[in-house]
Amino acid sequence: MTLEVGALTFDVFGTVVDWRGTVIAEGDALGKKHGLEVDWDQFADRWRKEGYVDAIARINRGDGRWTRVDRMHRAKLDELLSEYGVAGLPEGEIVEFNRVWHRLRPWPDVLEGLSRLRKRFVIASLSNGDVALLVDMARSAGFAWDCVLSSEIAGTFKPNRECYLTAARLLDLSPDRVMMVAAHKNDLRGARAAGLRSALVFRPDEYGPNRTADVTPEGDFDFVADDFLDLAEKLGC
Amino acid sequence: MTLEVGALTFDVFGTVVDWRGTVIAEGDALGKKHGLEVDWDQFADRWRKEGYVDAIARINRGDGRWTRVDRMHRAKLDELLSEYGVAGLPEGEIVEFNRVWHRLRPWPDVLEGLSRLRKRFVIASLSNGDVALLVDMARSAGFAWDCVLSSEIAGTFKPNRECYLTAARLLDLSPDRVMMVAAHKNDLRGARAAGLRSALVFRPDEYGPNRTADVTPEGDFDFVADDFLDLAEKLGC
Repeated sequence: MTLEVGALTFDVFGTVVDWRGTVIAEGDALGKKHGLEVDWDQFADRWRKEGYVDAIARINRGDGRWTRVDRMHRAKLDELLSEYGVAGLPEGEIVEFNRVWHRLRPWPDVLEGLSRLRKRFVIASLSNGDVALLVDMARSAGFAWDCVLSSEIAGTFKPNRECYLTAARLLDLSPDRVMMVAAHKNDLRGARAAGLRSALVFRPDEYGPNRTADVTPEGDFDFVADDFLDLAEKLGC
Repeated sequence: MTLEVGALTFDVFGTVVDWRGTVIAEGDALGKKHGLEVDWDQFADRWRKEGYVDAIARINRGDGRWTRVDRMHRAKLDELLSEYGVAGLPEGEIVEFNRVWHRLRPWPDVLEGLSRLRKRFVIASLSNGDVALLVDMARSAGFAWDCVLSSEIAGTFKPNRECYLTAARLLDLSPDRVMMVAAHKNDLRGARAAGLRSALVFRPDEYGPNRTADVTPEGDFDFVADDFLDLAEKLGC
């Protein structure tokens, strides 16, 4: 089967990068600089959940149109700063903190794993983050994507079918020659529904040490791997 | 001015790669293998002009819709092979020869030039070649594009305005913060008409030693350079 797959498309937030760890670290630094009393773990979780996951779910239910992720993040950031009693931050620093999502750090296995996988497969991002954000992140973290693909190009968000089909079309591959790699089962189910192959990669720490991540494998994915090195091994790279 | 520019978008055929030299070299090899008597210089020029340039011009005049470049190339290749009296080539070799456009070789200054330019600017392809072709070419030649952009994403061809505006939108930059780099003035005029900046790079050998390329600078481009190294120098990279 792996011989027929021509390209791997990667979910990014949580699968490639540790959004939570990066946001907490930058929040801590900002807090120290300005003497803020903020629970950054909780702040990061709420920013992600309320500012991104919930916002996308609303749009996918038909409430609003495709929106640049920076805008979603900024709207929630303003709410959270106010709610946590943070006032008077210079606008430039708020803009900069909002851009933390452009410079998220990869999980430790990612750079070597991608480099091995790229020898055999075309590797492309396929994120709900927009192209410009993904380009910044790749430059900052050193991801050598052959192609930066984003739901933005389809004008909708994963797990909508059109995102996966647009990626396959741009790669000039039939959907069954593209394999989605993600830590999230709803993303992989969306990919499968569009005819793509699927590889689940466990990221047990995505939500931090205190939350039990869903690490139960299920029988309906083509591959299940512990990390990108394990995936490379399983794909013969 | 250069400080405001965030991204450089590059024309590819002729500007980044020597399509003519690569096609002639592969034609020669094919000819030797099969004992063919073909004037590959002329073959390459006609393939390019009739199979690609003219085909795109027709589509841009409203005659037909966006088409994958492989298909245009293949249609003309079949005609030319027949016209030059080449019969009986195995289908696999015809397919492979048609894919020469996926593995065109860069001009000698390109890899170092792109590497220098990339330190300061986001670098993206912006070609009438489709995404999959550009991905193959980047992998084969080693172009480290931050982003593979193609007219395909706009569903039309350069010099149509929508191609340049789609690129700027995906890079999340206003058009005047994107600079088109090309060896062809009609491409740069299209970019300027869409509000982008423009850099003309001379490629005097694009059409071979016997044809005088248009190397007259004109006053309406932001930069005029002898090659990518000269461009890097002029942009302070």
